[in-house]
Amino acid sequence: MFESINKNVCKNNDFTEKEMEFFNEILQHKKVPKKTFLLQEGEICHFEAYILKGCIRKYYINEHGLEVVLAFATEDWWVSDIASFHENKPSQLYIETLEDCELLVLTTETKEQLLREVPKFERIFRLLVQRNLSAMQNRLIDTIAKTAQEKYLEFLKLYPTLSQRVAQHHIASYLGITAEFLSKVRTKLAKQ
Amino acid sequence: MFESINKNVCKNNDFTEKEMEFFNEILQHKKVPKKTFLLQEGEICHFEAYILKGCIRKYYINEHGLEVVLAFATEDWWVSDIASFHENKPSQLYIETLEDCELLVLTTETKEQLLREVPKFERIFRLLVQRNLSAMQNRLIDTIAKTAQEKYLEFLKLYPTLSQRVAQHHIASYLGITAEFLSKVRTKLAKQ
Repeated sequence: MFESINKNVCKNNDFTEKEMEFFNEILQHKKVPKKTFLLQEGEICHFEAYILKGCIRKYYINEHGLEVVLAFATEDWWVSDIASFHENKPSQLYIETLEDCELLVLTTETKEQLLREVPKFERIFRLLVQRNLSAMQNRLIDTIAKTAQEKYLEFLKLYPTLSQRVAQHHIASYLGITAEFLSKVRTKLAKQ
Repeated sequence: MFESINKNVCKNNDFTEKEMEFFNEILQHKKVPKKTFLLQEGEICHFEAYILKGCIRKYYINEHGLEVVLAFATEDWWVSDIASFHENKPSQLYIETLEDCELLVLTTETKEQLLREVPKFERIFRLLVQRNLSAMQNRLIDTIAKTAQEKYLEFLKLYPTLSQRVAQHHIASYLGITAEFLSKVRTKLAKQ
């Protein structure tokens, strides 16, 4: 169960066997059915979850009542609302499973416990947040600057397994276009 | 010279005097005149700079040749292209001083040296990146979801000193509207 997280989290780091055991012991293994909310707007996010299996979307509802998908997350990604988690403030976001999921969960308490007991994990989480920040910056630039077709190609690169797993209207919402327009983009790309 | 950075970086942390001295010794003090590029598109970003004095903008040029301001940074903020800095890849961004600036600079090498010598700084930088990530997430949501007036009010909250210091067309570019429209928003707000 811990093979993929240990490989992903601890590569290039010199953790002892005991430290890894401690890390694995505090992770909570959770099975969550599809279409379940892990977080809803107004709640405080108390988790960072590593996805062993399944797919999750993170979205918010805009002032017209429309869902806007900020990000997807799938196997070997972490999912959380980092702003809410770390500042202990109500989230603006919804986090919902799109498939049956298996997760390894850190809570506010267990994460602090981990960092206290094994401070070397500070580095792991710093690098994780940095990658997250890079991705978010790219997403922001793409949102402002790119065409629908360019954004769809970026989506395929970032989430190579998702175009067949996720409903088209969720992908359209991520790209900021209608499902009809996404369909046209896909047809055009298929012809090229 | 180190008073504000030490207060900001090290609050709530139990650094020894020797550790703080080490930190201050490796910071490079730089004076940079206004309208100077710290980074240009295609270059690799080799710095994280703490701003002692002055104001900086971070922008990219979109496919129509227009500048789009991603963020401003001013006294007591850090500025860098974290994606380029940490993945050692060419930046998509420009970072330019808008005023004469005084900076305290960490390079790729000195930052690694600091983290090696005083691993407690991992936590400091993790918290910094997390705040940065929260801000970026809010910026992304605002960009997609909010009206020009709402975005301008968010801008005033985030950068309380900048509305008088920065050219209106830079603020308009940050908000994704024209300078003419920004002027209308300001007039409307002044009347309320």
